[in-house]
Amino acid sequence: MASPLVTLTTDFGSGSPYVAQMKAVILRTCPQAGLVDITHQIPPQNIRYAALVLEDVAPLFPEGTTHVCVVDPGVGTSRPIVLVQHAGHFFVAPDNGLLSRVVPQVQPERVWVVTRSQYWLHPVSATFHGRDIMAPVAARVAAGHPPADFGEPGWTLTSLDWPQPQVEPDQICGQVLTVDSFGNLITNIPRNVLERWARGDSCLIDCAGHTLRECVRTYAERPAGTPIALFSPNQRLELAVVQGSAATTLGAGPDAEVRVRRLASEPLPADPPA
Amino acid sequence: MASPLVTLTTDFGSGSPYVAQMKAVILRTCPQAGLVDITHQIPPQNIRYAALVLEDVAPLFPEGTTHVCVVDPGVGTSRPIVLVQHAGHFFVAPDNGLLSRVVPQVQPERVWVVTRSQYWLHPVSATFHGRDIMAPVAARVAAGHPPADFGEPGWTLTSLDWPQPQVEPDQICGQVLTVDSFGNLITNIPRNVLERWARGDSCLIDCAGHTLRECVRTYAERPAGTPIALFSPNQRLELAVVQGSAATTLGAGPDAEVRVRRLASEPLPADPPA
Amino acid sequence: MASPLVTLTTDFGSGSPYVAQMKAVILRTCPQAGLVDITHQIPPQNIRYAALVLEDVAPLFPEGTTHVCVVDPGVGTSRPIVLVQHAGHFFVAPDNGLLSRVVPQVQPERVWVVTRSQYWLHPVSATFHGRDIMAPVAARVAAGHPPADFGEPGWTLTSLDWPQPQVEPDQICGQVLTVDSFGNLITNIPRNVLERWARGDSCLIDCAGHTLRECVRTYAERPAGTPIALFSPNQRLELAVVQGSAATTLGAGPDAEVRVRRLASEPLPADPPA
Repeated sequence: MASPLVTLTTDFGSGSPYVAQMKAVILRTCPQAGLVDITHQIPPQNIRYAALVLEDVAPLFPEGTTHVCVVDPGVGTSRPIVLVQHAGHFFVAPDNGLLSRVVPQVQPERVWVVTRSQYWLHPVSATFHGRDIMAPVAARVAAGHPPADFGEPGWTLTSLDWPQPQVEPDQICGQVLTVDSFGNLITNIPRNVLERWARGDSCLIDCAGHTLRECVRTYAERPAGTPIALFSPNQRLELAVVQGSAATTLGAGPDAEVRVRRLASEPLPADPPA
Repeated sequence: MASPLVTLTTDFGSGSPYVAQMKAVILRTCPQAGLVDITHQIPPQNIRYAALVLEDVAPLFPEGTTHVCVVDPGVGTSRPIVLVQHAGHFFVAPDNGLLSRVVPQVQPERVWVVTRSQYWLHPVSATFHGRDIMAPVAARVAAGHPPADFGEPGWTLTSLDWPQPQVEPDQICGQVLTVDSFGNLITNIPRNVLERWARGDSCLIDCAGHTLRECVRTYAERPAGTPIALFSPNQRLELAVVQGSAATTLGAGPDAEVRVRRLASEPLPADPPA
Repeated sequence: MASPLVTLTTDFGSGSPYVAQMKAVILRTCPQAGLVDITHQIPPQNIRYAALVLEDVAPLFPEGTTHVCVVDPGVGTSRPIVLVQHAGHFFVAPDNGLLSRVVPQVQPERVWVVTRSQYWLHPVSATFHGRDIMAPVAARVAAGHPPADFGEPGWTLTSLDWPQPQVEPDQICGQVLTVDSFGNLITNIPRNVLERWARGDSCLIDCAGHTLRECVRTYAERPAGTPIALFSPNQRLELAVVQGSAATTLGAGPDAEVRVRRLASEPLPADPPA
């Protein structure tokens, strides 16, 4: 039989010994657990980035996986810790919006507030509930304990105020959500929304005073240094620079406006855009 | 049955292929081993930082875990490599002080000097005993070989010259030990020492020309940018800046002096501290 | 029985969620797989660096290991993905030279072009064949599927234009191949070539206008700040600075010329070199 899987997602930073402390606690309780890092380089306390990562990555894991997610600016306050069961996966996280993309429609009866302290690591530190509460709970979930062992069900998850692209007849107006490790700008414009709107027309994309004319399928189609638009592996519109950083070249980052126009609608420019 | 666990702690840096070489050697010898990274981002050759990480992390792992620790500025010199058995854990490391926090009182008969070369990887490189000596020894320890297979017992471990906080009637005078990945300053002042001394009084903390007045339980209690003092997850006094870096804001790092005073003892300042 | 091992080598960067997506896909198909990261910090699209890492690390893993390697500037173009069987190891990678050091002499009948799409993850993204093609293929190889399930054999691997050191009577003229995480400069001059040429004479090494006179066995032999030459753990000539960075101190990087001369052949300098 395969090991029960536990994934970890935190903002502790690459190489943080706090991650290893969580793993030690999990392995003490569930020695047969298989541990997989999703990432520990969520920008500190950036719940929106973490929610996007969980949405993109967690559902790819096999059914029965338990995901522990510690991006927790409210640690030590009264924000609850929740255990969520959804589509064969379990999630243990603070209820701060972190799970609102990966389990957007979960019913309150599949959400347990983690209140029963007999499984926690005592004394519980004021600043590290990831190790003292979430890790031991996740380990027992992975080992097969029923969710009701950890608290009461019936909680409505906190939602994020998540920007939606505005689709208008002559443009789509969206935003940069995050920047990946290559400096690519990931937007909130999904491929299917853009393609339905464009109906096969060529498009121009405006961002931070730049106009991108190169909508391509792959990085290899254009020479180094060319700003291009393409769809990310997760089917969102992405702005990139071939063998470079779009964040640096375009001077844009999270929340920057991204506007998609039809090529036909563009007046002839006197000079090519910079 | 659960896999025997082997943890790795090095200063090779994030993503170093040398870590993967050590893992390959371990798995060749003990294919059933479960490998866990404690961290590979010990600042290069910083034995003190590594000793602190091992103290904080290693004892949380289950009994029977083998810990390989390679922070080894003296590689290739005559410094011995040791195998230590303590409280159900095994440690394989150069004898340079690295283990002096995690097994401070270990008896010489639980310390073996690793001298028997038949289990090493030959030819032994002059600069990478982690791969050629420590990894194959740790793998065999994890697989159940008795310590006496690897050398003679009866060695007194090297101790670090570790700064202790000075507790005086009117102040505690300590030091910054390390900086974590958030820029938090971790001091050598333990919570129980400070609380016994303070007897419930409010305290002020001086560091690098700044005076911190905010001694709080959690990060969430103060607005972004506030310098605060709190106890780290490992119960040491820690200086932090809410959603920022104390190292940058206070301009302080390892060895900086940290002074704790009673609030009552403070003369009224003419101007608030910078 | 031990788990089948799958290693991952990519240029996705430390903490990239794309690595976790590949792991999720592998574990869905081969839940018993043991996953080991070789590194995800190959400099972006640096095939030469990746080829060197694979050469140094992959052969140390046990027989039967499957290595997935994703450094793929040509993703989405017609460059094929190959499956290679060599010396008991399997490799899944784009055919762009990445494997040309680790399996330099492999026969075309041990190279399969991965063309059978029934095992791929659909829809196949244009930019992430690592997740959609290479991960599911590697997982099935690890689970024991025969190579012929994935495509046709009989392909000649792409070779890199790899610089070779020039050995002349009075000097060896080589190059810096890569810089490691300590700033050490790894050259293309193998230990055995240099030692055969030097026949026991002392040597001088010129690089970027500096002359290194200190050819030592270990870092510990010289004081901090001294530029030294020694052999890397992988038996290549390496230029280092004790407790510092040779890349910074010497101002040299990949492709910099490295010249080895006999000490006796050096004219007396009027001034010591800088």
